[in-house]
Amino acid sequence: MRAADRAGRLKLMAFDVDGVLTDGTLYFTPGGEEIKAFSTQDGQGMKLLRSAGVQVAVITARRSQVVELRARNLGIEHVRQGADDKLAAMVDILARVGLSIDDAGYMGDDVMDLPLLRACAFSATVSDGHELVRRRVDYVSRAGGGCGAVREVCEFILRAQGTLEAALSPYTG
Amino acid sequence: MRAADRAGRLKLMAFDVDGVLTDGTLYFTPGGEEIKAFSTQDGQGMKLLRSAGVQVAVITARRSQVVELRARNLGIEHVRQGADDKLAAMVDILARVGLSIDDAGYMGDDVMDLPLLRACAFSATVSDGHELVRRRVDYVSRAGGGCGAVREVCEFILRAQGTLEAALSPYTG
Amino acid sequence: MRAADRAGRLKLMAFDVDGVLTDGTLYFTPGGEEIKAFSTQDGQGMKLLRSAGVQVAVITARRSQVVELRARNLGIEHVRQGADDKLAAMVDILARVGLSIDDAGYMGDDVMDLPLLRACAFSATVSDGHELVRRRVDYVSRAGGGCGAVREVCEFILRAQGTLEAALSPYTG
Amino acid sequence: MRAADRAGRLKLMAFDVDGVLTDGTLYFTPGGEEIKAFSTQDGQGMKLLRSAGVQVAVITARRSQVVELRARNLGIEHVRQGADDKLAAMVDILARVGLSIDDAGYMGDDVMDLPLLRACAFSATVSDGHELVRRRVDYVSRAGGGCGAVREVCEFILRAQGTLEAALSPYTG
Repeated sequence: MRAADRAGRLKLMAFDVDGVLTDGTLYFTPGGEEIKAFSTQDGQGMKLLRSAGVQVAVITARRSQVVELRARNLGIEHVRQGADDKLAAMVDILARVGLSIDDAGYMGDDVMDLPLLRACAFSATVSDGHELVRRRVDYVSRAGGGCGAVREVCEFILRAQGTLEAALSPYTG
Repeated sequence: MRAADRAGRLKLMAFDVDGVLTDGTLYFTPGGEEIKAFSTQDGQGMKLLRSAGVQVAVITARRSQVVELRARNLGIEHVRQGADDKLAAMVDILARVGLSIDDAGYMGDDVMDLPLLRACAFSATVSDGHELVRRRVDYVSRAGGGCGAVREVCEFILRAQGTLEAALSPYTG
Repeated sequence: MRAADRAGRLKLMAFDVDGVLTDGTLYFTPGGEEIKAFSTQDGQGMKLLRSAGVQVAVITARRSQVVELRARNLGIEHVRQGADDKLAAMVDILARVGLSIDDAGYMGDDVMDLPLLRACAFSATVSDGHELVRRRVDYVSRAGGGCGAVREVCEFILRAQGTLEAALSPYTG
Repeated sequence: MRAADRAGRLKLMAFDVDGVLTDGTLYFTPGGEEIKAFSTQDGQGMKLLRSAGVQVAVITARRSQVVELRARNLGIEHVRQGADDKLAAMVDILARVGLSIDDAGYMGDDVMDLPLLRACAFSATVSDGHELVRRRVDYVSRAGGGCGAVREVCEFILRAQGTLEAALSPYTG
């Protein structure tokens, strides 16, 4: 089955944080705080996806307060941090909303993401993702992590579902 | 009409923030603060534009305290944040200063900017702007957002108005 | 002897901070604090190296609280900051763990690192390292400092030691 | 006279901050603070220059506490901030140390730097400097501002003065 066919039936799309919603950079301050750098374009992409009826989730192995803040900012309900077993986290989210893994997609950048990427109906990674990941996913973005890669995947899904034009029509009108 | 002719008659030029005055990166701190990264070159460009008699405005859909700080820093009077309807924000600014939309230009990077970009006498975007925006504006900068794209557009306008040489003459002597 | 043969017998690998674990950028805040930008991919690489039985150390001439934080975060025991004589710092670490310089490797980016790089059994640098360093080390990463260069070297060592596949097998399985 | 001949007789070299010692990015925090991103390699370059007997100065039109911090960090004595007239600031520094403008060099990136660049015995800019500046200086670095451009110019001067090898000999041994 082609990538677009797989993306066309998604009901929930989940994203990794470091390396996907960011470029993988961890900014540490001396107080032990962590700053993260997100992309405005990605935020708009996830909003477009949600407005078209696709649920959005964030699943990450690390923990950071800024991820909660950013997710709340964008109205994303499903946020799982400190998920050592990302596949289990995804299964749990799906159970809560009454969906199955065949309805779900994931975008990750590193080898630790492979078990979840393999299990999902649709898998994506960033142009600067790990070679082993790039070889095995349905879609590799042209953009790098934190630089619009998520936006690109959101539009790819919307196009596959035939809803991109309607989602953009308030602006392109 | 050519881009330079359109830019030649501008009396007010407005800029988007995220993706135009910045590269679209949102730095989140754990305290919920937001850091933004601006370009010195862009700041000088907006100063040159103002010194040549073109009013400068900032219109953005997001809200951030640092935008006020940066605008004050540069002496920009017209700042509209949280502008869900950017075209309405522009119309309001123009009414206050007694200008019309035919006197105004806007530089934006995303599809949400299209209604305002289409309405203005002159429209511009960044090299890394959304494809749908790049296709429809009068001028696409060689530089990316936050990396001198605004400076480039400021000099384009000054050149179109025949005032660039005079604006730089204190330095090029 | 080839680079892979040299890397194949390492028992301890040490990394420089600025320019290697970061891209060399020092972020200064007005309060005199210093922010550093690390890479998630590099962190995973050092974890993989440790899980395969290779000890990991950090040796840097500068001093910064964030280096302690990041090292603790990753479970790295050997951290030497303010090391004006990096070779002496390495010798001291090795004495404590009962290893010799023939068991050790170092990755550094600048001419100040040459004495330690020359002394070690295996030496590496980043793609954007100083020309004099790039000419003299066993391995030059394709990635730049702070952008996955450390991850690349970690996988190079694991491959040379024949343990890469096993280290990744929980994910590639 | 060639660039190397001009650099060969320098007794004091001054650098601009934004766009030269940084990549021109101004990081604003909501508290009105400003973060600046410097390069470790540049810092080492200025130390090498000073150890070879060339005085180092920083002259900038903006004001920021972090510039003082960074300069103190590196042992740079001559720091002039808020210098609207950079040439006057340079003349004042030179008078204090008993040197003339024929002994001095400057590295700047924007048109506002042209009067000082023209007056100095040696002038340099960054690869991403303003076109009008790139056309008129003695030396254009291959590196961009904040990415090792200053280090490159420091080594160019040391090579021109025949002192580079000696300055690096403690490491290249």
